[in-house]
Amino acid sequence: MSPRPSLITFTTDFGLSDWFVGTMKGVVLGMAPQTQIIDISHGVPSGNLRAGAFALRSAFGYFPKGTVHVAVVDPGVGSNRRAIAVETRNYLFLGPDNGVLSWALIDEDVLAIHSLDHSKYFLPRVGRTFHGRDVFAPVAAHLAKGLPIAKLGWKQASFVRLPWPEPRVQRSKIRGEVLHLDKFGNAISNIDASAVSALSVNAGIEVRLGRKRIGGLSPCFASVPQGQPVAVIGSSGFLEIAVNGGNAARLLKISIGNPVHVSPIPER
Amino acid sequence: MSPRPSLITFTTDFGLSDWFVGTMKGVVLGMAPQTQIIDISHGVPSGNLRAGAFALRSAFGYFPKGTVHVAVVDPGVGSNRRAIAVETRNYLFLGPDNGVLSWALIDEDVLAIHSLDHSKYFLPRVGRTFHGRDVFAPVAAHLAKGLPIAKLGWKQASFVRLPWPEPRVQRSKIRGEVLHLDKFGNAISNIDASAVSALSVNAGIEVRLGRKRIGGLSPCFASVPQGQPVAVIGSSGFLEIAVNGGNAARLLKISIGNPVHVSPIPER
Amino acid sequence: MSPRPSLITFTTDFGLSDWFVGTMKGVVLGMAPQTQIIDISHGVPSGNLRAGAFALRSAFGYFPKGTVHVAVVDPGVGSNRRAIAVETRNYLFLGPDNGVLSWALIDEDVLAIHSLDHSKYFLPRVGRTFHGRDVFAPVAAHLAKGLPIAKLGWKQASFVRLPWPEPRVQRSKIRGEVLHLDKFGNAISNIDASAVSALSVNAGIEVRLGRKRIGGLSPCFASVPQGQPVAVIGSSGFLEIAVNGGNAARLLKISIGNPVHVSPIPER
Repeated sequence: MSPRPSLITFTTDFGLSDWFVGTMKGVVLGMAPQTQIIDISHGVPSGNLRAGAFALRSAFGYFPKGTVHVAVVDPGVGSNRRAIAVETRNYLFLGPDNGVLSWALIDEDVLAIHSLDHSKYFLPRVGRTFHGRDVFAPVAAHLAKGLPIAKLGWKQASFVRLPWPEPRVQRSKIRGEVLHLDKFGNAISNIDASAVSALSVNAGIEVRLGRKRIGGLSPCFASVPQGQPVAVIGSSGFLEIAVNGGNAARLLKISIGNPVHVSPIPER
Repeated sequence: MSPRPSLITFTTDFGLSDWFVGTMKGVVLGMAPQTQIIDISHGVPSGNLRAGAFALRSAFGYFPKGTVHVAVVDPGVGSNRRAIAVETRNYLFLGPDNGVLSWALIDEDVLAIHSLDHSKYFLPRVGRTFHGRDVFAPVAAHLAKGLPIAKLGWKQASFVRLPWPEPRVQRSKIRGEVLHLDKFGNAISNIDASAVSALSVNAGIEVRLGRKRIGGLSPCFASVPQGQPVAVIGSSGFLEIAVNGGNAARLLKISIGNPVHVSPIPER
Repeated sequence: MSPRPSLITFTTDFGLSDWFVGTMKGVVLGMAPQTQIIDISHGVPSGNLRAGAFALRSAFGYFPKGTVHVAVVDPGVGSNRRAIAVETRNYLFLGPDNGVLSWALIDEDVLAIHSLDHSKYFLPRVGRTFHGRDVFAPVAAHLAKGLPIAKLGWKQASFVRLPWPEPRVQRSKIRGEVLHLDKFGNAISNIDASAVSALSVNAGIEVRLGRKRIGGLSPCFASVPQGQPVAVIGSSGFLEIAVNGGNAARLLKISIGNPVHVSPIPER
């Protein structure tokens, strides 16, 4: 039996039409040939830290212990923003210190944070526009081969956190917002399943998107007729608004940030 | 020499902009680290069973014996639709029992069909919106490690078949339809090469798209001048209508389902 | 320690929505199971040889020695265009002999060129519309397993070269053009860093896009305020015009081929 190959994931806003992601993989495999590299997503909108942070948060926990998670959404590349490696009980995280890692770290036990200071772990020539290739890929390869993160640079006390958009819970009502629109047009909110089940209501709840009534919570998309809106607990653990067999974002004209309400069914 | 790594393919409508596919890969590699996972396509239009079935049919046979083919186009996810594993002489197939596997199975020797009943092969927590991650990925990992499909659940006598759109053959004429528009704008029909060569015509054939005359069958795209429409036998073995150096779908305004005719060249 | 796996890269205009790329990978892995296949890009516009050549040139050098680089942008597939394998001091290149390989080869030491003549290295049935699958994938697998390129066919004296669009340098001025618009909307020109630094100017330079003044050369995107245009030396070593935090292609209405000027700051 061969040893378990090291695993590196990439989450970026680089897209797949250019050669950027492929180049990062070439750098990694030149240094750490036994590595498997898995794309979490390269479809993060350009420079959108929240979208990158949410993609990483939604996926990272499904990878085996020891995985090196690299997230590069990096509008400040080449400026004086820091780059960091974060070790948690289960994983290593690597990226610019601009918050893109921070939502994944909310529920992780952080053991150590180090800045990336020692250029001997970078490519020989580091430009100022593509640290994914010149810095993060070679450092990820070193980590995949077992380099302790303490070797990378100074110990840091903290990292930049993006504020998590907590929904407002008020007695028996929750007011949240749309965090993400996925490929199917499903609208993922910031209202998590536990917040919904903690509501003490007798008669059941109803979900509204702005003023539009969606209905109660359904077990799955196909619980309602084709073409009808439906609210479910989605695969990331958040309340999600969809249209069975249709594209909710388009049909209901949903934008990121739109308010989502959960409240008791009004008495008649 | 290391042992041959197991091979799993994915065909889905999940797209690549979200983290869905990456998450499935994380689940597989956590359980079966020596596996290679190859994407056949994640560009199947949302919920389009025929498009998923056609992508899988077009690609599966080019993979080595023993490959586990996973197809997840699953509009009924979380409802009471069955999930199945199908063993053929050459491959294992895994997916919802809604027909998405069925076109690949047309020419395969089916040895056994089992439903996915035993949740011990699933992730510990199975939601009702993303069985790609919670059910099919872990089961694929088990199969890649050698689990016999009979362990997964009850033996089934049959699986759901999507009707294959047979072209109508009438003496020396064939009437088919456009099945797929590819990235180049080429229109792939349901008329296969053998049906065309079985036509007994003396003077040669002509291909029409609706009322538009495309011409005879050409050996390759570049057989006609730049910008001209051309009919060829494409790489999936079907009659295909293209424009040399152009996008036929756009230039000829082709939609899926449009009629395609093959007939003898009319006598003058 | 397992042996270093062989590495194959793909650069094509096949897109990722169809099954074409997945099928090529199935063919490779059926023949050479220990291979790692990395996608450089499949987003080359259909049939665009320059775009394919530029993607390959920008990425190939970041892969380890011995990598087999396969580029398939092949509008003449199935016609009498040649297919070639090129061995350089560091790599093997494989593709149609239509220029798509030629920009990567500009700075490589070419050791041998052979045409692909012997069909025993192809799939048993070679069609005339998809040589990526039927010819290049199986030949790449053979090369990855160590087949010398001389076995593939006749030695060739040369290969088709796309003319590289040299910028015009005139005393203290450079006139170049936009070669590529990337996913971020950044406009990559054909003016390389050394040409800029070779300009003998006292007062500094200014960059113009057509008539629009962009400014001097900045170290990184974030050197200018959000929303402002900026000129940098990009990650491919070429002068690049961007908008900090924005999409330059859209905001400045840039098209491929647009003129880019570098000149001394005009005296007031």
